[in-house]
Order: sequence, then structure tokens, then C-alpha cells
Amino acid sequence: MVARALAAARVGAPLGNEVPVVVPVRPRRRSAQAVAKTAWINPKIARYLAEQQPATPCLVVDLDVVAEAYKELRRYLPLARVFYAVKANPAPEIVSLLGEMGSNFDVASPAEVALCLERGIAADRISFGNTIKKERDIGFAYDRGIRLFAFDSLAELEKIARAAPGARVFCRILVECTGAEWPLSRKFGCSPEMAVDLLRQARGFGLDPYGVSFHVGSQQTDLTQWDGAIGRAAEMFSVLAQSDITLRMVNIGGGFPAHYRGDVQPLERYAAAVMGAITRHFGNDLPEIIVEPGRSVVGDAGVIQSEVVLVARKSFGDDRRWVYLDVGKFNGLAETADESIKYRIRTAADGGATGPAVIAGPTCDSADILYEKADYRLPLDLQVGDKVEILATGAYTASYASVGFNGFPPLKTYCI
Amino acid sequence: MVARALAAARVGAPLGNEVPVVVPVRPRRRSAQAVAKTAWINPKIARYLAEQQPATPCLVVDLDVVAEAYKELRRYLPLARVFYAVKANPAPEIVSLLGEMGSNFDVASPAEVALCLERGIAADRISFGNTIKKERDIGFAYDRGIRLFAFDSLAELEKIARAAPGARVFCRILVECTGAEWPLSRKFGCSPEMAVDLLRQARGFGLDPYGVSFHVGSQQTDLTQWDGAIGRAAEMFSVLAQSDITLRMVNIGGGFPAHYRGDVQPLERYAAAVMGAITRHFGNDLPEIIVEPGRSVVGDAGVIQSEVVLVARKSFGDDRRWVYLDVGKFNGLAETADESIKYRIRTAADGGATGPAVIAGPTCDSADILYEKADYRLPLDLQVGDKVEILATGAYTASYASVGFNGFPPLKTYCI
Repeated sequence: MVARALAAARVGAPLGNEVPVVVPVRPRRRSAQAVAKTAWINPKIARYLAEQQPATPCLVVDLDVVAEAYKELRRYLPLARVFYAVKANPAPEIVSLLGEMGSNFDVASPAEVALCLERGIAADRISFGNTIKKERDIGFAYDRGIRLFAFDSLAELEKIARAAPGARVFCRILVECTGAEWPLSRKFGCSPEMAVDLLRQARGFGLDPYGVSFHVGSQQTDLTQWDGAIGRAAEMFSVLAQSDITLRMVNIGGGFPAHYRGDVQPLERYAAAVMGAITRHFGNDLPEIIVEPGRSVVGDAGVIQSEVVLVARKSFGDDRRWVYLDVGKFNGLAETADESIKYRIRTAADGGATGPAVIAGPTCDSADILYEKADYRLPLDLQVGDKVEILATGAYTASYASVGFNGFPPLKTYCI
Repeated sequence: MVARALAAARVGAPLGNEVPVVVPVRPRRRSAQAVAKTAWINPKIARYLAEQQPATPCLVVDLDVVAEAYKELRRYLPLARVFYAVKANPAPEIVSLLGEMGSNFDVASPAEVALCLERGIAADRISFGNTIKKERDIGFAYDRGIRLFAFDSLAELEKIARAAPGARVFCRILVECTGAEWPLSRKFGCSPEMAVDLLRQARGFGLDPYGVSFHVGSQQTDLTQWDGAIGRAAEMFSVLAQSDITLRMVNIGGGFPAHYRGDVQPLERYAAAVMGAITRHFGNDLPEIIVEPGRSVVGDAGVIQSEVVLVARKSFGDDRRWVYLDVGKFNGLAETADESIKYRIRTAADGGATGPAVIAGPTCDSADILYEKADYRLPLDLQVGDKVEILATGAYTASYASVGFNGFPPLKTYCI
């Protein structure tokens, strides 16, 4: 309805019985440099945007980039089984593509279970990795053949025992996650001591105590963070072996980065750090390894195209412009909360002189500010109506969008 | 699809070829006191929840409470025209009810314009109050008869002049908003000096410079905040009168509270503070007054019912439990960001001893924590599967919900 309404909307000033007044549209100066800079965008996506001119805001995901990122993970971590974290981007096309390439899937809810099954993923390639599940949701997954479940507390273990008898379970432990741009707080995991006790109880409940998981924080930039966590896991293997419980699996979670504003090291180095830590702590007796990437598989594959709605100053002599886009915290850019994730931004006016800018979204909500402290600079020549591309936005964007806060529709995704 | 899948889901443990293991469901101790405390919930909503047993999480809005809040505003601010801020809760039933009661409407987008028109609201009762509008959206509203627009910058004024010739415009000014629980930052408004200049230019563009707006912050608890803002508006009236421009309207925005955990003063006192300031600064020559309440009209009318998904401790000896609900930051409780809005919470186990708790939502996102620092205490007897009611959640909840982050569906609203 909104789309139709917008299509019917009119730009310009039809004349009623009011006096017509000419308000000038300011002409645009464009330097030659601008073209060169804009070309940094993935050419396949740039071509799509140029040819299709989709309404903004929208997210365009290049499936070739997703495929390449998956292959790179397989190349550098050949010993690990990849479970794609569906929550990062649940676009059905992405699930299908990764399914065809052999990926497994980490899901958070019955809807994500159903999505994977609908896309032809066999149940034995799905891990229910959310440690907070309703008992009936565990049963829903179990009824559909899923036999791998995460937990980090006694109450959850009891639910799994009742609703998924005999299933493989892995316990998530709390680890340090300094260095992550989207740190994981203490919401998930329990102390390793408690995890050991729970895995012992798991066997008593008739479950299969399969392994240990942890997560060092999303967009982790400190490669040493995996070592301590893997060391803790190895200790748990040893302690439980004394109780005649043989753990077989270490789930190293996610944390591999996408390319935002700061520099990140290549995936190769992350893989080397992880595998180095595993061989250091496990020696010749390597466990099964599971990795749950989301951001690193789909992040770089996406570009959000937006339009500048307004450029304003708050007072005479204000040296910082406010640049308002048609995408904001509530229709795709939730990860700018506390300015955590700093996306790279390209504009139609790149190449000329720049000045400091506060960047905000289109809603009437004062919290809908993307960057105020992060020292973003935008071209001084940027004007209302200009297109702006926000790069590496394939992960944790469209699925975070609100149902329609302030009447702005959710972010539309095009997989190409 | 999710709903159907959930309906088909099974609780308990059907036996395959695994060994059946009995996992006890712990019995529940309930004191007599608990019943009394639970009864604090609006009885009409409590009856609805008891009789209909809607799936959780859900938001139930009592339209009688909305009507009463609207009447109270009219009673204490008889001189003001009420423009309901649709964004606070765009449930069509609420728009219809307030429309029938004579309310006007403050909208933020074409979809909100369309919603009001569909519900039979005449265009002259609609104000396009978002200061950040695409030119084609201004045109969309103008084509449908809307003639009242907000702005706070030259670029926006130019767009309005082109797309809505002759319209009434009001300029939003920046004011202090200390004391607000959901403060408004500097995203909206310009300095009064700039506003004066822009209102002069508005006339030059063929627009009707109608008035001044401000907003002292949502859930404002300091009643003196309106005085300074109204004083600034009055000065602008005087200054512009010297240029032969007669402003006629002061839009005092919103800011009136709903009832969250802290005490708030009765609406009567807010109204007295506002009217006192207006008569103090404008004397006998009172301007038209517009008020744009959202939270104070619908906030107290809503109750979210949720279910406890998990109660866990993170380590042996941990004195704080983590209580995970099936509603969180991404499916309705976005205003718990930075623990800003502190909702009152009632549980099925109220009346017994309580202990400290961290309260979190159901997603795999570590940011999905509602209260960690705000010293919430919950009954020690609270168990997985218990119902929990989150009170005064009629505003800024359902419309903030994500489209399905982690596969959790948006919050469903029932207006009764």
C-alpha cells in the first residue's frame, strides 16, 4: 500500500489557488574524482543499482561474494564444519546457496528451523544453537529430526532431556571477549566449572554430552582471544575424561570479521590463530571442530543504498552538518547502536572537499542517530536527493528492521 | 507458517529408540499473597488474558484506558488542540477511536498519512510533524489535502515550498530537555535565531509562517522544562511581529508521562505548568496551542504478556539469576535501550521472597538484555513457563518490533 502510495506521489508544486513561487533547485557541482571513488563499490551491485534503480532504502546482496566467503572459510579451515548463523541474514536465497555448497546451519528459533527445512537442508545439518529455547520449540525441532542442541544451564538441559531425548548437547561457556566490536556481554554461557557439572548431568539425563562451545564476540579484532577459550575447552575435555565422558566437539562460534571502517586482518590469519590454538591445546588428538560464521560470510556481500533526505545545520555558524538518510536504526542499521559498527559510506558526491557530519535516520525518534561521535566526514557538496551507499551491510541489517516504526517500511533485500 | 508450525509442536518427550529418562518438572509453591499482587493489572486486560490465553508474547491494549487518557487531556488542557502522535502506537483501532473522539493526528510518514485517511480522519486534522521528509512524501500529503507541515532547516522549507505551496508551516526549535527519561538529543530543531530567519524566508517562499514547536523530551519528569521553551517561543512571536509576521500557534510537543517504575506527577500538574507558562509569557494574547501526546495517551493502556523461557545462573554461587523472557529488545521492548524506560513487571509468582535478577530477551543477540544495572528483583520462586506481565507498554513497543530478528515474529497487538 505504501509502495503504491509512493508511486502515486508527486514531486514539485502543482498550482492550486495559491500564488506560485519559484524555489530554486540548486545546481550540482561534480568533480571527476567523484566517479573514481564511487567505483569502489562491488561492480555487480553497482550495475544492478544503476540498471534497476530500486526504491531506496534497499539492501542488495551479491551471492557470488557470499559463495566466495564460504569457499575461503573452507579453504583456510578445512578441518572445521561450517554452520552458517542464519540470524546474520535469513534471506532464503542465501540459505539455498550455502545449502547447495555443503554448509550446515546454526538456527535460533522454530522459524529458522522451518526456513532451513523448506530450503532442502537435512535435519542432521542443523544445530539449534540458541541456549534460550522454549520446551515446545525444542520439541518442534526434535520432531523434525534435529539432534544437536546448545545449552548453558540446568533448566535448559532439563527441557532438552524432556523434549529431545538422546540428543547431542554442547555446553556454552563464558569467555573473555575484549577486542570485539560487538561484544557478547554475559548473556550466554556459564563458568567452565558449572559446564563440567552440567555435561556430567547431561549423561545422567540420557543425553549425549558432545562438546563445548564459546563465542569470543562478533567482529573480534584480537586474534589471541581464541587461545584462552580453546584452552578452557581442552581442560574440560580432560576433566570429563576422568569421569569417563568423552567430549568430541569444540564449537568455536563466530567472530570473524566483515570489512567496516577499521582495518581487519585477513581470514587466513584468523584461521591460523584458531588452528594454532587447537593444536597447541589438543595435540594430536584433535576434536571435531564447528565454526558458526555469520558476519564474515554475508557482511561484505551486501550494500545498502539510501537517499539523502535532508542536510541541515542547527544554528548559524554551526560547523557540523546533520545529514539525514532514509535508512536508520529502525529500518536496517540497528548495529550502529552506541556507534559500535562503523560502516564505510560512499556518496554520489565523493571526490570533493569533505566536512564533519552527524549522520541520522529518517524517523521522529531522537535515538535514530547513526554517527555523532565517530568523526564521519561527508562531501561538502552532498545534497538532498543524492544516493548514498553503505558498504558491508549484508549481515545483521534487514532482519533487524522494524515492522514499520514511524510508518517506514522494513528494508527490502535483493539477492543477485 | 511459524504459527502453524508452533501449533504442531510438541511438549514432552515422545519415545523413539532412545532410552526414556524421567526429568522431573519441579512443583510450584504459590503463596496466597501472589494472587493479590497479580490483581494490580488492569482487570479488563487480566480477564482477556485469562479467557483468551493468547500466545505470548503479545500486547493487549485496553481502548477504554486510551479514551480516558484522551478525555483527561481535554479536561486539563481545554485550550489545546490534541494531535495524537501516531508513531506511539499506530494500531488502526486506536486511530479510529481517537478520531471519533475528535482528536487530530501528528504523522511521520506517508504510511501514517494513509492510515489516518483510511480511518476517516479529514486531512485538515493531520499535521505532518516529521522535520525530515522526502519532497515526494510532502507532495503525497499535500495531494491528499494536508496543509500543515513542520520544518527546522532551510532545505526542508524549500522542499515544502515546492511540494506544498501555500501550506502552513511551523518551525521546531532546539530546547533543553534535561529530566526526560527518553531525551531528544539535538536531532530535531534549530536555534531560535535561525528559526526566526527561516520563518521570515517561509513567507518569501509563499508559505504561511504559522508557529513554533518544540519538544522537551519524552517521559519528561521536570515540570519546569516547559517554561523556558515557551518563553523562547514568545520571544520569537515578538521578534517576528516587528517584521509584520504574525505567528499564531505554539506546538508544545509531547513529553507527558506514562506510568513506569518511577513516580510521576499527575497530568493535572503538567497541564498547570504548561498553561501557567503560556499565560506568563503570552499574557492575554494567547496563541493557538497544539499538543502532540503519544506516550501519555496509549502507554498505560497496554500490557505485554510474556513467558519465562529460562531461569539460569552463570556459575556456582552466582547470587543473581538471569531471567530470559520471550519478549526482548527486538520484538517490542526497544525502549529498554540503555535501560532508559524501566517498566513495572508483574509475575505469576508475585507475593513471595524476591532476589536480584538480570532480565533478558530470547534472541541470540548479546545486546538483547533488558535490565542488568537497574536493580530489578523478581520472585525467587519464578519458574520456566510462568507468565510475566510488563505494564504500561502501550506506547513505542509493537511498532518498534523487528520483522523477525532471529526468526522471532513481531509482537502481536490485541485492542480490546
